[in-house]
Formats: sequence, C-alpha cells, structure tokens
Amino acid sequence: MWDRLITDCNVATMVATDDDPLGIITNAAIGIDGGRIVRIAKRTELAGFRACEVTALDGAWVTPGLIDCHTHLVFGGNRADEHAMRRAGASYEEIAKAGGGILSTVEKTRAASEEQLLASARRRLDALASSGVTTIEVKSGYGLDPDSELKMLRVARALDGHAGVKVVATLLALHALPADADRSHYVDMVVKKTIPTVAAEGLATSVDAFCEGIGFTPAEVEAVFTAARHHGLGVRLHAEQLSNLGGARLAARYKALSADHLEHLDEEGAAAMAAAGTVAVLLPGAFYCLRETRRPPVDLLRKAGVAMAVATDCNPGTSPTLSLPLMMNMATTLFGLTPEEAIMGTTIHAARALGLAHERGVLSPGKSADLCVWKIEGLAELGYWIGLPGPHLRIAAGQDRGVK
Amino acid sequence: MWDRLITDCNVATMVATDDDPLGIITNAAIGIDGGRIVRIAKRTELAGFRACEVTALDGAWVTPGLIDCHTHLVFGGNRADEHAMRRAGASYEEIAKAGGGILSTVEKTRAASEEQLLASARRRLDALASSGVTTIEVKSGYGLDPDSELKMLRVARALDGHAGVKVVATLLALHALPADADRSHYVDMVVKKTIPTVAAEGLATSVDAFCEGIGFTPAEVEAVFTAARHHGLGVRLHAEQLSNLGGARLAARYKALSADHLEHLDEEGAAAMAAAGTVAVLLPGAFYCLRETRRPPVDLLRKAGVAMAVATDCNPGTSPTLSLPLMMNMATTLFGLTPEEAIMGTTIHAARALGLAHERGVLSPGKSADLCVWKIEGLAELGYWIGLPGPHLRIAAGQDRGVK
Ligand SMILES: [Zn+2]
Ligand SMILES: [Zn+2]
Repeated sequence: MWDRLITDCNVATMVATDDDPLGIITNAAIGIDGGRIVRIAKRTELAGFRACEVTALDGAWVTPGLIDCHTHLVFGGNRADEHAMRRAGASYEEIAKAGGGILSTVEKTRAASEEQLLASARRRLDALASSGVTTIEVKSGYGLDPDSELKMLRVARALDGHAGVKVVATLLALHALPADADRSHYVDMVVKKTIPTVAAEGLATSVDAFCEGIGFTPAEVEAVFTAARHHGLGVRLHAEQLSNLGGARLAARYKALSADHLEHLDEEGAAAMAAAGTVAVLLPGAFYCLRETRRPPVDLLRKAGVAMAVATDCNPGTSPTLSLPLMMNMATTLFGLTPEEAIMGTTIHAARALGLAHERGVLSPGKSADLCVWKIEGLAELGYWIGLPGPHLRIAAGQDRGVK
Repeated sequence: MWDRLITDCNVATMVATDDDPLGIITNAAIGIDGGRIVRIAKRTELAGFRACEVTALDGAWVTPGLIDCHTHLVFGGNRADEHAMRRAGASYEEIAKAGGGILSTVEKTRAASEEQLLASARRRLDALASSGVTTIEVKSGYGLDPDSELKMLRVARALDGHAGVKVVATLLALHALPADADRSHYVDMVVKKTIPTVAAEGLATSVDAFCEGIGFTPAEVEAVFTAARHHGLGVRLHAEQLSNLGGARLAARYKALSADHLEHLDEEGAAAMAAAGTVAVLLPGAFYCLRETRRPPVDLLRKAGVAMAVATDCNPGTSPTLSLPLMMNMATTLFGLTPEEAIMGTTIHAARALGLAHERGVLSPGKSADLCVWKIEGLAELGYWIGLPGPHLRIAAGQDRGVK
C-alpha cells in the first residue's frame, strides 16, 4: 500500500532513451511512498498496486518539479528606478560606475534585518513556486562583508522548505568590491574569513564568483576557488557574460558544477567544460533585460556535448523575473534552444548544476516525488507560451503544494 | 451608506494633472456604490463616509483594472510546433506561404464547436484576468467564412462577464485569404454578407483588418471600412507591422479607434493619427516572438502627440502570451516606454482604443469600479518585474474577483 498513486497522465521522466531525450511515458502512472517515487510505468503495469490516495490527471502532462539553479533571491529593496534609467540608454557598466547597480542593493541588503529579508524573499519564492519551481539555488553576494554574507545565507537556510521548495545555498564570495575596499585585502578576507566560517557553519554547499572586467580577475577567482576546494565546497562561476576572460576554462579546471551566462564563451572554453562535466547555465532573463545582442554559443555547447541548464538569475538589477517557464520561453525564443532542451535545462541538467542529480530532476524510483502537472496538449507548449501562469498542480515530496 | 469603502492605499487615478500624468493620490480612499466609483480622495476627506464593507489595503498601490485592447483570444488548437520551426529560422512570411501560420489555426477553429472554443478561451481569459485584466477586446478572424466568423463572435459574447471581465468584440473582417478564395469575391462577401450580419446581430462594435503584403491591400481595407462605417461600426487596423503600406493614414482617414503594431510607421502616418485621435496600440509580444529588430517609432508618436496603448495581441502564432504586466515590461524593455507610459497604455489609453474612455481606464466618480491592488513599493515596479504574477487583488464592478 503506497501513499499515493498518480494515474491517467503522460510523463516526461527525463530518463533518456536512444530516440527520446525526455523519456516520455504516455498513459502512465506514478507510485509515491515516503515522499519518493517508487514506481513509474504504463498505467496498465501499475493496475495491481494500491495507494491511500489516488489522483487521476485526465490526460495531463507531468514533468519533474522545475529546478531554478541560479538565483539571487535574497536582497533588500528593488531597482525599479534603475530599470527606467537603463531604458534611457545607460549601460550596465555606466550604472555600476555611477554607484548604482549592485552596490545600491548591497546598501539595502545590509540595512535590512533577517526578518525583512526573509519576508521579501518568501514573497518572491511564492511567485517562483507558483510558476512550477520545487528546488531553487539561492546565492549570497549582496552583503560583501562576512557578517552580512552570513546573514544572507541564514535567510536562505530559513527559506528552505517554504512552499515545499528545497533551497540550495551558494556563497557568492566575489560579487562586487565594496566602495572603499582594497582589492587584495578584500579577496584575502574572503579567503581567510568568509569561506572558512561558511564552511564551518554548513551555510552553503558551493562558492561562486563574478569573473568579469567590472567584477574580479581570474587570479582573484582562483584564490577563492582554491579556498573553497580546501574547505570541501563545490565551485561555480559567473563567466563570459560581458567579455571573455577565460572564466569557463578556469571553472572547468576546478571541476566547477557550472559556469553561468557564457555569452562570450569560446570553443576552447566549451571543450574544457565538456571534459570537466561542468554544466552551462544559460540566463536569458539577464540577456533580455540588458538588451544584449550576443547570444551564448548554443551550437558550440551542443557540439562539445556540454549540458545546458536554464535559470531565472532572479536578481533586482539585471533579471527581476519571477517565472521559470518564462525563462524556458526566452531560452527558445532568444537563444534558439529546442523545447526539449528548455525542459532538460530546468530539470535534469539543472539538478546536475546543483550536484543533485542523484535525487532530483528525473522521475524514476528513489527520486524525490517533486512534480508539476501541466494542463497542456503537448510538452512543446512549455517553451511556447510567453508567461504561462505555471502548472495546474505542483507536488513537492509527494504533497500537493498549489492547485490552480 | 455606500456598498464599499477601500482605504489606506495609494492610487494612480489616471486623471492627469499638470505635473503628474498618473494623477496619483497617496493615503487615499475610494467609495464604491452600485459597481461604480462614487468618491475618490485623500483618506482624511472620506473619514465621515460609511460603507457596508470596508477594505483597508495597508499602503498597497491601486490602479484601474488593466485593459487588454487587442487580442485574438478565441481560437482552436495552438501553434507550439510552429514556434519550434521559427526557432529553426523560418520567417513569418515563409511559415505563412508554407500553409502554416494563420490558416492552420483557421482549420482548427472551424472544426471546433462553440463549446470547445469557449472552454479554451475561458482558460486563457482566466490567466489574463489573474494577471490583472478586467476589460478585454476579442477579435474574430480565424473563421474567414461568415458562419465561422459569427461563431467566433458568439463565443466572444458568451465570454463576456467571465471572471468579471468585460469583453468587447471586434470583427476582424480581413485577416487572411482562405486557401482557394478569389480575392475580390472574398472582399465582396465580407462587405455584403459578414459585416451586415454582424451589425444586425450586434455581435461586434468595430471592424478590423490586416493591412500588409501578406494580408490585404489598402484598397481592400478601404472597401471594408466603408461598409463598417455604413453599418454604424467603428474601425481599427493592423497597420505597418512588417512594411509601410500607409495603413495608419488610411485608418486615420476613417477616424479609426486605433492603428496597431506600427513598427514601420512614418512621420506622416503619426501626424494623421494624432489629428484623427487614433490610438497607437503597441504589441511587444509579437515583436519579441518574431524577433523583430525594428521598434515602433515611439519618439515620433510622442512628438506627434499620439496616445500609446499596450496590449498582449494574445494569439497562437505570433504572441502566445497570457500576461498583460509582462507586456508592460516588454514595452519598457524592448520599446523604451517609460513605466508611466506603460501604465497609461494598459488603462486610460487602452480604454480610448476601445471607445470606452467614458466608463473605464480611469478611477473617478461615475466610472466602473474596476481596480487592481498591487503589493509593491512604487508604480515603477509594474514595468520592472519580468513576469509579475499579477495583482494581489482584482476588483471588477466593485466585486473581489481574485485574491493572491
Ligand atoms: Zn547571477
Ligand atoms: Zn492582432
């Protein structure tokens, strides 16, 4: 007797076969027990099994719960006014140099209490959850000093489980240089204080950095990666967004879980990522918001065999978005991903980018019973609608978490 | 004793003053009776009034209910597969010439029963309503023959009032030429049969056409406009989307309520629209979906003094979107509208585009009590978030219609 049996559905299991990357089972049923999937097969094969609760889905489509593998969900204030400024023609770099940009969010994040940060992050998480998200990565990076970074990570930890969403916290150790900081002293403090403390308190599972002309140099990133590895933390990198500093190669050298953005990635970088198993996280929201014209080299990534994930990059400056299905549409519309790639990018490949492929992103026995039920005629609709209002039903660890 | 008093809010009334196009009242209260607004003023001024129901909004922002003044909401099937084809590089015109495009939707719309069309349109209207819409225009145009066009307009009529949304129906008389039709016979049938029947049955208040190389010529449009005027119907026009055929000037000559799309509008067209009071309806969803690069000449429209509205253009081929706030974001991000213009474009100017300015789009005594309550810190957030999940509360004719 299982806890639950979901029947009369078509499932994208994400267990790829030779001719079907999505591992589709039509007329399927899913057995759930203890919050995990126990069986998934043709409905007829599960006819003999019984469960406490049976949910018939009337032919709806089921995907794994969506995984948003790159967000900056915790922050103080918002930057709606800067949005207007950018519309008037100011560039990302100009805004940053004018003292706006990241540093204005840093100020508001530092000034906010943990309770305030938690309350505003919960509202945004509610919106993302209602769009289909059951697992989310949340980065720090608007605190900059050790205390404020730890505060952000404690907020991320307090968010875990809200609306049934699993939260994975990342220390974004190098995001921006505080206004009057000395570069080498700052990196030194991150290496000697922030990273060890975060590791000791178990507040994050990986460390991230922003490798860019307006961010940090590869040498600075390397110092931070070395410390992260030393303390048993994974690494990931904002790389090749506005220029090519060889960040992807550097990330691959440190066996990074992911390299993210990648608009300026070159062939060498893609090859290095493929060899290291580093996932390419594509962030069309920032591309759209900044009105960039250079798309990430999707063909190069395909040819090299790099797994591509798609995420919101939810942040107040360059991607204030609250819908992962909208990012799937932008990934197809703006970057030319196929609908199948967009679905893989928010399930199986997103799970890989978070080091969670063993438990999430795929619907197969043993995996967490996180799933989205979509009232659509075919899976291609997931990349098609511009601003789909989210799934009809979201299930996290076997529990209904929101019905539309 | 009024029916309702809404207090403790900041209101964008849209009653412009010299220095405030949005007519903002902070610390406001709104008196509602019989589904209409009776008073709107500073909270202190309404302190002596009483109502059956008092709703305190805790400092939230209130705008008029959003008005989506250009949609093709009623249709059979969807075109998710074509979306993938376009991603592979096919142009709008190539898809149309390959027998895909509009005609594939015509086939599915003709094959569907009124009940089927109503059921799928209701689902889409639910999504748009939940994004903040309280008034919507719905065009026919996928039937092409008189019976099928009438069927679509009956579905639009049946939609009226669903989720509290007021529906305004438009006969899209010239959308595409049926596969084996003779052009002049077809236009003749529209003029002599479709328009008179629609007018006699009161199924639409205006007539629209698609003036374009792949659509209909200005002469054909003019024949239809003449008939529409003769039968007491308003006119509007899909104009200057992919090329400049002088559609905007033609529309202005017939005192059109609106000319829509306008990416290729010239100065002469803008001047004619301004003189005629024709509203420019901007449709960033189609621009985004088709990956167009030529934006509508917003500066030209501003200089000429043409009112700009913003709409979803919700349709299965070129703008499958279900969120009007997302279009407000796209109008600012892609077309460079200010947040204020985006708000005017989905309220007061959208009402003008539908000939409803006397009763909708503005919050002032006598107007329909349609409003959206937004839990935001400032109005600029309405253009800022990419895919805001819709208002906290939507009120139509004084009644709560959806709380988040
Ligand atoms: Zn980021
Ligand atoms: Zn249209």
